[in-house]
Formats: sequence, structure tokens, C-alpha cells
Amino acid sequence: MSHKVLKTHQYNPVNLALEETLFHTANGRIGVRANFEEGYDEGIVGIRGSYLNAFFDTHRIVHPEKLFGFPEIGEKILNVTDVQCIDVQIEGRKVTITPENVSEYSRAMDMGRGEASRSFTWTDGGKPLIKFDIRRLASFLRREVFALSYSVTAIEPVRFQLQSIVNGEVSNFFDPSDPRVAGEAYRTLIIDKSEIDGNRLTMESYTQQIGHRLFVQSDHRIITDTGRVEKPKSHMDSGVLALVWEAALTPGESITLEKISTFRDSRRFPDEDERCRDYWNGIDVPPYKVLAEEQVVYVEEFWEKAAVDIDGDDAAAANLNFNIYQLFQSTPSDNRAGIPAKGLSGEGYEGHYFWDTEIYMFPFLLYTRPEAARSILLFRHSTLPGAREQARILGHQRGAAYPWRTISGRECSAYYPSGSAQYHINADIAYAVIRYWEATEDDVFIRDFGAEILFETARIWLELGNFSDGRFHIHGVTGPDEYTCLVNDNYFTNQMARKNLQSAVDVYAWMDSHFPVELTRLSDTLKLDRAETQDWESAADRMYLPYDAVRNLNPQDESFLRKPMWDFSSTPPDNHPLLLHYHHMTLSRFQVCKQADTVLAYVLLNPPEKDSTIRKSFHYYEGVTTHDSSLSYAAFAILAARLGEPEKAYEYFSRTVSLDLNDTHGNTKDGIHAANMGGAWMAAVWGFGGFFPDGSLPTFRPVLPSKWKR
Amino acid sequence: MSHKVLKTHQYNPVNLALEETLFHTANGRIGVRANFEEGYDEGIVGIRGSYLNAFFDTHRIVHPEKLFGFPEIGEKILNVTDVQCIDVQIEGRKVTITPENVSEYSRAMDMGRGEASRSFTWTDGGKPLIKFDIRRLASFLRREVFALSYSVTAIEPVRFQLQSIVNGEVSNFFDPSDPRVAGEAYRTLIIDKSEIDGNRLTMESYTQQIGHRLFVQSDHRIITDTGRVEKPKSHMDSGVLALVWEAALTPGESITLEKISTFRDSRRFPDEDERCRDYWNGIDVPPYKVLAEEQVVYVEEFWEKAAVDIDGDDAAAANLNFNIYQLFQSTPSDNRAGIPAKGLSGEGYEGHYFWDTEIYMFPFLLYTRPEAARSILLFRHSTLPGAREQARILGHQRGAAYPWRTISGRECSAYYPSGSAQYHINADIAYAVIRYWEATEDDVFIRDFGAEILFETARIWLELGNFSDGRFHIHGVTGPDEYTCLVNDNYFTNQMARKNLQSAVDVYAWMDSHFPVELTRLSDTLKLDRAETQDWESAADRMYLPYDAVRNLNPQDESFLRKPMWDFSSTPPDNHPLLLHYHHMTLSRFQVCKQADTVLAYVLLNPPEKDSTIRKSFHYYEGVTTHDSSLSYAAFAILAARLGEPEKAYEYFSRTVSLDLNDTHGNTKDGIHAANMGGAWMAAVWGFGGFFPDGSLPTFRPVLPSKWKR
Repeated sequence: MSHKVLKTHQYNPVNLALEETLFHTANGRIGVRANFEEGYDEGIVGIRGSYLNAFFDTHRIVHPEKLFGFPEIGEKILNVTDVQCIDVQIEGRKVTITPENVSEYSRAMDMGRGEASRSFTWTDGGKPLIKFDIRRLASFLRREVFALSYSVTAIEPVRFQLQSIVNGEVSNFFDPSDPRVAGEAYRTLIIDKSEIDGNRLTMESYTQQIGHRLFVQSDHRIITDTGRVEKPKSHMDSGVLALVWEAALTPGESITLEKISTFRDSRRFPDEDERCRDYWNGIDVPPYKVLAEEQVVYVEEFWEKAAVDIDGDDAAAANLNFNIYQLFQSTPSDNRAGIPAKGLSGEGYEGHYFWDTEIYMFPFLLYTRPEAARSILLFRHSTLPGAREQARILGHQRGAAYPWRTISGRECSAYYPSGSAQYHINADIAYAVIRYWEATEDDVFIRDFGAEILFETARIWLELGNFSDGRFHIHGVTGPDEYTCLVNDNYFTNQMARKNLQSAVDVYAWMDSHFPVELTRLSDTLKLDRAETQDWESAADRMYLPYDAVRNLNPQDESFLRKPMWDFSSTPPDNHPLLLHYHHMTLSRFQVCKQADTVLAYVLLNPPEKDSTIRKSFHYYEGVTTHDSSLSYAAFAILAARLGEPEKAYEYFSRTVSLDLNDTHGNTKDGIHAANMGGAWMAAVWGFGGFFPDGSLPTFRPVLPSKWKR
Repeated sequence: MSHKVLKTHQYNPVNLALEETLFHTANGRIGVRANFEEGYDEGIVGIRGSYLNAFFDTHRIVHPEKLFGFPEIGEKILNVTDVQCIDVQIEGRKVTITPENVSEYSRAMDMGRGEASRSFTWTDGGKPLIKFDIRRLASFLRREVFALSYSVTAIEPVRFQLQSIVNGEVSNFFDPSDPRVAGEAYRTLIIDKSEIDGNRLTMESYTQQIGHRLFVQSDHRIITDTGRVEKPKSHMDSGVLALVWEAALTPGESITLEKISTFRDSRRFPDEDERCRDYWNGIDVPPYKVLAEEQVVYVEEFWEKAAVDIDGDDAAAANLNFNIYQLFQSTPSDNRAGIPAKGLSGEGYEGHYFWDTEIYMFPFLLYTRPEAARSILLFRHSTLPGAREQARILGHQRGAAYPWRTISGRECSAYYPSGSAQYHINADIAYAVIRYWEATEDDVFIRDFGAEILFETARIWLELGNFSDGRFHIHGVTGPDEYTCLVNDNYFTNQMARKNLQSAVDVYAWMDSHFPVELTRLSDTLKLDRAETQDWESAADRMYLPYDAVRNLNPQDESFLRKPMWDFSSTPPDNHPLLLHYHHMTLSRFQVCKQADTVLAYVLLNPPEKDSTIRKSFHYYEGVTTHDSSLSYAAFAILAARLGEPEKAYEYFSRTVSLDLNDTHGNTKDGIHAANMGGAWMAAVWGFGGFFPDGSLPTFRPVLPSKWKR
């Protein structure tokens, strides 16, 4: 892989589902998996999918034992109307690639141009017949637009047929054997209206449960050397619209079908009149070439700010830039969505937003595209009503409890011990708010949005925790490490809660001096008074942080070090990841961590601990962490670098940066691990770059692995 | 209510579902709810049901988020073939009781005779037409038999029709709004074969999923003064068999239909040839009168051993005897079943067995009918394979982990924090074993069954807990109090585990001296050696028992006293029971208990604590316990009596003993609270009677409330 092109020349059916993810095209709004337009050969299982960020339907969550407050409504990103389809017939025979009939195969994701491509030669009995050249992009300038250019060039004289399809009969992927993806088939879009008008196919649909509407339009253009193409025939058949062109080419002649599709949905354009949904209303649909040229300009501007060069380690730089590009193409711009755990590359985790966004992806955005970072925070602000509702469900009188997983803002986690119990998400969002302010000095954002988030998240801690023996304790929560649930005084949570409380106190004081009117208005709305902020301050000041003086360690939680160690030596290699092979209760009674927890707290905040404690804890947690979560390596990499262990840091960094490219977790077919990608960036910039955001001024103290020059 | 007859003279449609439970007839094998034979008036909702202990079908448990080890197969006791049905028509009009057409109504459960009865006069426009007299029993001598006697006596000349029905089209009750009963309709029995042969109706069915078979036979006899009854007509219609008699009576004449039904099932008679299922094979079906007479003898014998008299408090004695009778009629005798949480009176808790059996019901059996106590333990022994499987699922290499709720022995709990996490059930069963041995000196039972239970339950603790700082700690378990889940060092669990371990050590030593050959054989089977028993001993000796020296209290668990108190003053009365109105996480972060936990540990074991600690703890837990569980009052009553507070004990006892009779939990319609009934007996005998089973010799130190003379 060169610096900014991911490429493969090998057609290997086994890799196709993985490649669908790695080569997918997205723009933060639309994500289209890299399926073959013409489909796969029989027996090959792919996950054919197109997604619109935050476009979901609801479903009933049925609990076999339903207790109070367990969510009853789930949300799931939908596989939407398929505009990828282009069927080809050569001499009456349908084209699908098989090892026997393909040569000169290659596919690429040109991250410098924001465009994916695929080319191959179709052969018959070893004889090359026709050459294919296919390009696609999801436009960054026009977030509604997904464009395809499908070219064929004849090598031998050939008659063939191109059929462009808009398929509304789509459903989501499921696999009953894997708890990480949906367990059952899920009906999605109901088609409402279909139309064929010349070269335009349009289809309107709505989601079965919640009635979100979707308007999809595909415009077509045929470009030939000769003009010898027939006008298309069209047909319409229960959810499938098609245009069909017949052509006969002589050797050297080529024909290109351009298919420019737009997606508009009622979550973003709720007030629009039904008849005004044509994105191109009144203007000519631009040629693919124009869209591609716009795209390059936009993408180059991005790379100017974001590209990472590593002198002496081209491979690492290329991998890192791949990760950065994935984050880039997963990030929305409209305040109506967050970044799903899998970006828009697949259905894993149902298109939900987690704490990963603010902790792992946000730093990259903040320091490369602060306007995108702001958009993410505005989205979180817009979901405060759902977070307040969740706080009431969890028995809190005041404040907001951001949900563990959600699209709309409603808690969708069906298993609270490693879901809603992760109260730290409140502090994680507050952390992003305060980091954003520090980095951008965007006072208006804080005044109008940030303060409300900080206050509403901070006040939860006072109801959740309590003073006991002079210290503030937080009981019965789960930290980032999901192998130890529902614990008391989780170090990470308590540290982050302290930061949340301190930030709220600081911003309250700042508002008081700079925006007293706005503060009064907000305080009235929130029924907040100064006395409450004094409680915040005293909880922050007296926050209990577990520390074992004998061992000179920060225990992950108050009881962690009393538990026995996990016996890795008698754990069969096949039993990883542990959560797929051991009961949650089994894992909980050992010192074994899925991911960085205390280590992550050290990374994010200026730790009040002695250096020797941090160093000792780091090595301690290295010994008990499985890194079964993709979020883990990055935190270890950063802390290793900070502790002056660059080679160890490089080891962790390498695992981070290649996690999806090498499919080391074995589930990249379900989508990228977007947070890990942000983590890779953090490992490079926070770790080796020595960037440390905590404190009054960010600092840089680079620590490079021996291989790296600069 | 007299001492041994429960009676009502009021026909109140609102009470019928409750009365179905209170007046049900059972014999530990068969349980038949007290539905009206002829059905209810339109609009009255009852729960029509007949159950066979341990006769169940399986169903898939679908978890919205399925983690490793979550049970996927549930079990549910079935509502079996209905033999209660007798339809009556008077002058062509179907008889159902309404307030307008009934007079002289009464129903009774004669617990001295083991027989339920119902009588009323049917009127037309205020004019009495015909008198009904109905009796029913589930035979204790013949556990397969349920018998009905249905008599009518004419007051005016009348033509009428009696129709006896065997209805195989039955399904279980469901109510989607109540988490304590099943949430959805559940298909049960599939009818295989039906036959009408003279006065005999037979029906064979099998359970849809697991294929357990059921053979039901109803034999009929008509007894008249005059002989003027027609031969029956019969008809058979999709799952319904019927015999119909027509009769014309003159005033004073009567006619009685006896319907003697038998239930045989493949769980108990698996090898029987299909053609040999007639229970009466070769002998005459006895008249109802004979069955009733046998019944009286059996029941009188029971009362001789079990009846409680309370001089000075007839009402309490009557209530207590009602509870005792319910336990009596819920207890099986065939080693093939336990006592379901609701006895055989309803479908609540799906007919499952819990720890309640051994802790709350077993003492009554042990000291009144030790052979029944033995049978219960033999049943638990027979389910060791399921408990071993559950131990493997929970990550234990050795030993058995008895399931939280089960019929067959397989864990059926779909919510582990207040289910499988209650490891104390292992110790509870071990506790019953050792108490049985102490009370009966049944060495053979211990040698052949008890030792294996003790060893297999004990060894779990060594894998579950661990030594830390010189003490043995048990992490991440739930005690009896379900409002505080997954805690460390639960006082009850640790105390009971200690007893479990000590008992296992003692029995190992005893076997070694008395039955060395059997010990060797058992040790070989279990791969158990002496070294392991030394670990048991040292874990027992060094078991950590939480104690707060400053407050002089035993905390329920290690973190309990650090949490804030629940604010009862601002809890609306409608918000009880709390579990229906607060999230489990909310409850968990407060000092609030659903039920006796530490208090129960004091009750069961000779506590090593100072008297002042026990007294102080008792009062402390009084303040934080809601008694939302029916298991709570009894433990508080016993400890109050022991602490010399008889009036307080009486208060708790009163709530225990009348819980079902007064329907104080509002769900007695779903079945009796069998464990609470055992608790009522314990409150009287262990509490006021001052019986204390722990130690080398049981002791009696009676403490009577002022009202009680003797």
C-alpha cells in the first residue's frame, strides 16, 4: 500500500466480505460497502449494504426477564435502498467474476482522491473479451450524493447488456451465531412509491416502525465513442426499478454508464414538500468527472491538515493514513449524527454511537477539523432530552445520563452491566467539551451548548455517589473494562467524574463573570443554583481514588487487587476473546481486563499519582489485560511512549494501526473499528508526538521508536 | 375460619381468581385450581389450571444481548388436560353462577379431611330450583388420582343435562403486563389419541418441544335415587371428549356424578407399555366415598404429627394450620420433584424450584415428615448432573453449582444478577442435608447421597473465592437480598459457605472412619483427594465475615454500609414493591433490602457474633428492609423472638401467616407463597417455640407473645 492508496490485485472470494469494509466509500452521511455492482458468484456470502448515518428504524427489545427500566425499544441503522446494482450480460450470459473468467483484476481505494475503483478483464476460455473499469465515490461536498461510473471496453467484438437497478427490497444482515451482530432478520424499508422517468429512477420508502422517510433518486447518463447505444428499456417489478441498455461494441470501443444517486431522508429534511425532493431540482445532473474533481479538491485540503508522515517507516505512515482516512469518511457534518462504532462501513453495533466517539475519535477531529468536532458535540447536545429521560429511568431526580448506545439519544443497551452501568460516558462527553473549549476557545459554543452539557452531566455524580468517611465514593458502576462490571470506586470513573465536576465548576464561574444573563437563564431552566455547584466542588476535591500503598498501584476498582489472577497459562488460545468463552461472572471474579481502564485514565488526565505508581501500574495492567477490545492497544501505546518505552509503544501502536487492515479481531467484515483508528492517531500524536492535552497549555514531548526519524 | 376449615359464604366474582388458589386441591403430584366445574359467568377472568409437579415443556430463551453461558432453554410447568369440566343445563339453559341466580352459596376447604367442597342453590326469578353439592380431592394415597363428586338435588320438578368433559386443548396463563408471570401465550400439549369407552374417557398427549407424554383417564359413575337416568351419549370433538346424561328429577330426588380421573406421565413411568396405562388395570374404580375415607385417614395421621395449637390465639393457629396444610399438599413423595415456589396451586414462577425449598419449606418437613424431607433431598441429588453442567458454564473445573431456578436440574434463570449469581443455593442445599442428618441420623442417606452433595457443593467455594490478606473472600455474588446484586463478601453467603465447607470436612472424616470403601469409591468418581478437603477446612477457618467495629454491625456485604440510605420518606406508597418501580442499579446503590439477608444468616446458624452485634444489626436491618419478598418476615420474626422481643416477633409472624389468606402481596391468584408458609411454621416453632437447630443438640427456649398461653 502506497501512502494513500489501498490496493489489491488478487481476486480471492474468501476476502470479499472483508474487502467490502476496507474499500467502502462514505462521506459521514452515506456509506456504501464495496460490493461488486454486478454481484458475486454463487455461494459467496457478502454483506451487501448502504447506510445513511442516523437513519434507523425501531424494534421491540424483548427481555426474557424484564425488570424496571430495561429498554423496550431498540434502534438499528438500516440497510437502505441499493443503488450499487449494475447487472451485465455478455452475449446473453450474466457477468459475475469467478477465478476462471477474470484476469488483470485490481481494486483500489484512492484516499488521495476520495474515490474507489475496480478493474478487470472478462475472459472466455482464456480469451480476453472485454475490459471493465469502475469508479465510485460518496461526495464530501454534496453529502446526499453517491456516484458510480461503470465503463466497459471491448477487446473482441461483443454484444452486451447493461442493466442499472434501484433495489428497494433490502433487509439487514444477521447471523444468529455471533453475539456481536444482529441475531435475527429485520424487516426494514417499506416501498411507498416508485417511478421511472426517462433516465431517472426514483423510489420513496418509509421505515416500518417509526415511519422515517427516504427518497432515493438515480440519474443515468450513457457515454460512448460511437453513439450506437439504444435508448434504455425500463421495467419495474415489486420493489425493483431497472433501466436496460443494449450495445454492440467493436474492439477498442468503449461505453460508460454513469449513475448519480441521491439520498434524502425525513430526519434531515423533515419539512420539505414531498414533490421537492429532487436534489438537482432545476439544474443539470453533473457528470461523474465533475463530482470526482470537486472531490479531489476537498480531500486534498483535508490531507494538508491531517496527513501524517513518518520518516523511516513508510508502512506505518501508510497504515496510519488509512486509519485517518476512515475516520475522515465516517465523520458527519450536519449536527444530526455522531460517528457510529463501525463508521458507515457496516452494520456491526447497529450503527450506534458509544463513548468511543468522544474519547477515541474526537481528539483527531479536534486537532485536524475542529468544525467537525463541534458538530459532534452539537449532536450530543441535541440528544440531551434522551439522556435526561435515561437519568429519570435510573432513578436520578436531576441531570442527564447519556446512554451507552444509541442513535436518537434513547438508551438502547439491552444488557446494563456492561451497558448503562458505564456512567463514565457522561464524563467522557464532558471531557470532549472541555478539551474542545481549551483547543478552540469557542466561548460561544460553551455559552450556548457546552455549559448545559457540563452541568447536566456533572450533577448526576452527586446523586450517584456519596460521601463516606470523608471521601466521595461512586458505587455500582462499570468502567471501560467490561470484564469487571458493577464495581465500587472504579479509578477511571472516579477520575473522569472529578474532571467532569471540576469543569462544571470552572465553567459555572466563567459564565458568572462573562455571561451572567445566560447563566441565569440556563440555571432557571435547569433549576440549578450556586449551592449545587459547591457540592460539585467538594465532591471533586474529596473524590476517592483507589490506591494500594503496599503495592504502590492504583487498583482498577476498590476490590480489584483482592481477586485472584486469571490463569493465562491454562487458557487455550482458541478461548480468546474471553467474552465468547467465559461467563461474565467468571471473568468478573478474576483480575483480568478486556481493555485499558486505569491506564486510559492516566492517558487522558494529568494523573495526580507519583511517576513510580504510574509506571508500576502500567506494567501491572499489561500483565492482566487481554486487549480483547479494540480500544485497548492505543492507550497502552500512549502511556508506554510517555513512560519512555518507545519500542514497547511501537509494538502496541503497530497492533492498533493494522487492526482492520490485518483483520486481527476477525470481524472487520462487520465494519471498521473506528475508535481504534482514532486511537492509532492518538498513539502517534499523543504517544510518539508526546502531545499532552491536559493542563493549562498542551505540551509536546516527542518520544520516537528507534526506527522513526521524524 | 375454624381450626382446619377454610370457608366462604360469599359469592364475589372479584375474588374468584384468588379463591382458585386458596381452595385448590393438591397432593404433591397433582394440583388442581379451584375453578368452578361449570365455568364462570361471562367477563370473569380466572386462571383455569391443573398441574403435574415436574411435568414441563421446554422453550427457547431469547436474549436481546446474548452473552456466553446465558441459558437458552427454559422450562415451564404445564397446564395439563382439564378434567374439572362438568357442564350443566337446566331446562336447556347453561348453568353459570351469577349473583342473581344463586343462593345459599358456600365453598370450603376441609383440611381435616383433605377435601374441598362447594354448594349452592340455583334459583330462577328468586325461586329455588335445584341444589348443588360438589366435592373434590387429590388423593394422598393414590397420587395419580383426582376425584370429583357432583351432586344435584331437585327442589322443583326439573329436566336437566350433565355433561362431563375432558378437555385437552389447554394452554398456560399469560399476562404481558406482569413480570412475575409469563409474558406470552405458550403452546403446551399436543393431543395424540382420544378414546371413549362406555363411561371412560381417555386422552393421550405429548409436550410439543421435549415430548414428555401424558395419559389421562376419567371414569364416571352415576348414582341416583331412582335409576331414571338415561345412558350417556358421548361425543368427541377436536381435543374435547364428553359424556352427556339427561335426567328428570322430582322434588327431593337427587343424582350424583362421580368422576375419578388419573394422570400418568412419562417422566415417572417411562418404561411402561403404552397399553398398560390404566391405573385401575384389572380392578374396579373405587367410589368417591372410598377415596374420601382413605383420604381422611391419611390426613388425620398427618395432623397428629403436624398440627399446631396456640392456646389464646385461635385465629393465629387457624392461619398457621392453613399454611401447614398448603405445604403438606404441595409436597411430593416420589423423589422425582421438588416443591415449586407456588406449590401446585398456580403457574407463578413457572413451577420452578428455588433455594426456598431447602431453607424455608424443608425444616417443616424435616421435623414433621422426615421421609418427605428425604425425598426432597433425593430429588436434589438426582439433579447433580445439571448442577455440574452449570458449574462448568460458570467456569468451574470441579464441583456442582445448583441452579437458581429449575425443574429438571438445568439452570433456567434468564437474569443472572439476581439468579445464577446466588451461589448461596449450594450452601442452602448442603445446609438441608446436614440438618437432615443431625435430625434423623440417617447414615445410609449421607453415605449414598448426602456426602456427594456436600462434597460437590463445597468444592465450588474454593474456586469461587480466594485467600487475600490471610482471609478467604468470595467476590461477585448475590445474597438472598435481591436489591443488592453482585457484591463482595456477602455476610450470608460467606457464613453459609463456611457451614457448607465445615460440613463437607466433617462428613469426609466421618466417611473415612465409618465407610472407607464407599469414600474411596466416591472420591475416585469425583476425583477428590484429602488435600482438597484440607483446603476446604482452611477456607472455612479463615472465612472473612464482614464486621464494622465502629458501628458494631455486620454489613450485609463488604461495601453495604458505605452506601447512602434509601429515602423512604419521599418514596410514594404506590412505588412498592420497589423492584417494579426502580431500576436494579438504582436500588443497588442504596442501603435498601428486599428481604432478610444478614438476619437470615443469624437465624440459620449459630452466629459467632456478640449478642450486642446481633441485636444492633437486627434493628439496623429492620430500618432498611422493605419485605418486598415474601421470604422476609419469617426471618425477622424468628430473630425478634430469639432476641426476647416477642411482641415485635408476633407482628412479623402475623404478616407471614396471613400473607396469602389476606393476599397482602396482591399476587396470590398466581399461586400460594409456599416458602413463606414454611417460614410461618418456622416463625412459630423456631421463633416462639425457641427451637434452634444449630449446634450439637437442638435446643428449645420458648418466647411467647403476651397473648399466647402455650
